[in-house]
Amino acid sequence: MGKHTIWFHSRPSIVSTYSVAGKKEGDGPIGSVFDRILSDDYFGEKTFEKAECKMLSTAIENVIKKSGYDKSDIDALISGDLLNQIVSASFAARDFNIPYIGIYNACSTVTEGLALGATIVDGGYMSDVVVATGSHFSTAERQYRYPLEFGSVRPPQSQWTVTGSGAAIISSRGDGPSITAATFGKVVDYGVSDANNMGAAMAPAAMDTLITHFTETGRTPDYYDLIVTGDLGALGSRILKHIISQNGYDISEKHVDCGEVIYNIDEEEYQGGSGAGCSTIVFCSYIYGKLKKRELNKVLFLATGALLSTVTTQQGETIPCISHAVAVEND
Amino acid sequence: MGKHTIWFHSRPSIVSTYSVAGKKEGDGPIGSVFDRILSDDYFGEKTFEKAECKMLSTAIENVIKKSGYDKSDIDALISGDLLNQIVSASFAARDFNIPYIGIYNACSTVTEGLALGATIVDGGYMSDVVVATGSHFSTAERQYRYPLEFGSVRPPQSQWTVTGSGAAIISSRGDGPSITAATFGKVVDYGVSDANNMGAAMAPAAMDTLITHFTETGRTPDYYDLIVTGDLGALGSRILKHIISQNGYDISEKHVDCGEVIYNIDEEEYQGGSGAGCSTIVFCSYIYGKLKKRELNKVLFLATGALLSTVTTQQGETIPCISHAVAVEND
Repeated sequence: MGKHTIWFHSRPSIVSTYSVAGKKEGDGPIGSVFDRILSDDYFGEKTFEKAECKMLSTAIENVIKKSGYDKSDIDALISGDLLNQIVSASFAARDFNIPYIGIYNACSTVTEGLALGATIVDGGYMSDVVVATGSHFSTAERQYRYPLEFGSVRPPQSQWTVTGSGAAIISSRGDGPSITAATFGKVVDYGVSDANNMGAAMAPAAMDTLITHFTETGRTPDYYDLIVTGDLGALGSRILKHIISQNGYDISEKHVDCGEVIYNIDEEEYQGGSGAGCSTIVFCSYIYGKLKKRELNKVLFLATGALLSTVTTQQGETIPCISHAVAVEND
Repeated sequence: MGKHTIWFHSRPSIVSTYSVAGKKEGDGPIGSVFDRILSDDYFGEKTFEKAECKMLSTAIENVIKKSGYDKSDIDALISGDLLNQIVSASFAARDFNIPYIGIYNACSTVTEGLALGATIVDGGYMSDVVVATGSHFSTAERQYRYPLEFGSVRPPQSQWTVTGSGAAIISSRGDGPSITAATFGKVVDYGVSDANNMGAAMAPAAMDTLITHFTETGRTPDYYDLIVTGDLGALGSRILKHIISQNGYDISEKHVDCGEVIYNIDEEEYQGGSGAGCSTIVFCSYIYGKLKKRELNKVLFLATGALLSTVTTQQGETIPCISHAVAVEND
């Protein structure tokens, strides 16, 4: 087998992060740690799609400002999102005079981007790279499911797409927790075909990448202070903990899922948050903040993605899933 | 400004390529150089989408066979396509037990992938990487324009999406032309909003990357035996040659566009071929073949992408475009 895990010996740093969250996310349990909370989800735009794009460019603009760097210091923008043709990322990139590398692995886009960014910086090809992604509840609903006006009833296994964008700067200079390793996931499909039950579909992909990471690095769950998945939701997290325990790994004391911490779960969010924005804004605020304050020192961050489209569901396909992992550590 | 151009000092090789082409492409001027030509565009599947996915997995499977490598030698698959959520790439990746890195920059996906693959291999993170992409006329028509059954009339500035898939192996070992440098493009939008006139929209992006490449490398058009764009089509190519000459670069003797060479242009292809498959299969057959035979020794390959979606067009947006370039050279 090929090596799924690569090491970054120069320890590229995450020098800065920025998070933009929707109103509902701002009202949630970790609302106080977001950099900016929207007062309404149109964000002053005429359509939700334009609002999603503006959230992303706001996160990119402000993560650069917050770092104290100049825009001209940034060598590349690595970005993707959930809309068809990742238009939020591409249209946000139009606002910046920076090389743009578009990526897509559904909700695992954030860790795919962090892994690629760390590779490019660690290899000495570039020195400062922005990684950004996001999602918007209302654009995702109408693209993947039903128009909001339709008022469809959500099944209890469903999750709620997060409105939010996050950005991080990976740099060869400056301070901050380092990306020390990445494990690229492969596509895993256990035959789940219920597009409302992403947690169940994605849990095996998270398990596959976790076990690969432990095997190839020689680390155990004990090595990490926290193993952060995003966004399996409550049901998917329980499935992950169960199936990985059957394979000899107990992560129950170490594991948190971004989809589980973002909402109060008091109306129709059911299993919690999802969407590329979910894991991104939780990492770029709550998790990164704890790393900076050294309340956490060794975090394994695995975002999980369901690689379906409405067309594949209509054509009777099951749901292939993936999860990429990055190890983020203080010295 | 950041550095858009990066150098690959270890000169990672393209050790093998494979191309799968549709029937119409097989009947075109360069039909004899494709590895496989479909007898019908369903490729034995029930839907065109499934056929597109099968073309991609066929290219991946066979590029590995042709190289003499084993599947277990391959460290990663870097792939993307034009369908919503790049499902052809993701579903093809399901067939392989290989880490998968999904990318999307429309029709510039192939050079984005070659540039990222060369970065990962040159940096010593992996030793053998497959880059693959493709497109299908019938899936693109119904996703981006009209169902075929609608029989819509094509305007004369339009291009014809290529049915085809190509794959290449970038390796730290073995023989073959090397990827010596890459120039990552930034998003360029000159305000074109006609979604039927991609060539005009994309030409400024190709120019921007070309001028950046020449400026940062100190090279001139004379350095290269051939400057290959894909897929501006006939009109877009004329626009590129015109606007770049106004900036002091004459590429007219060195330039060829993949969209111009793939069809006989005898019915409604008008400006020629387009789609992620167009530049990919032309590069993975005709251009790569000439490099292997040393009929060409220094090629600059720039695929161009239009980063729109049907939703952005409906919402009145213009078309942001991008072009990434890779230099492919014999020793």
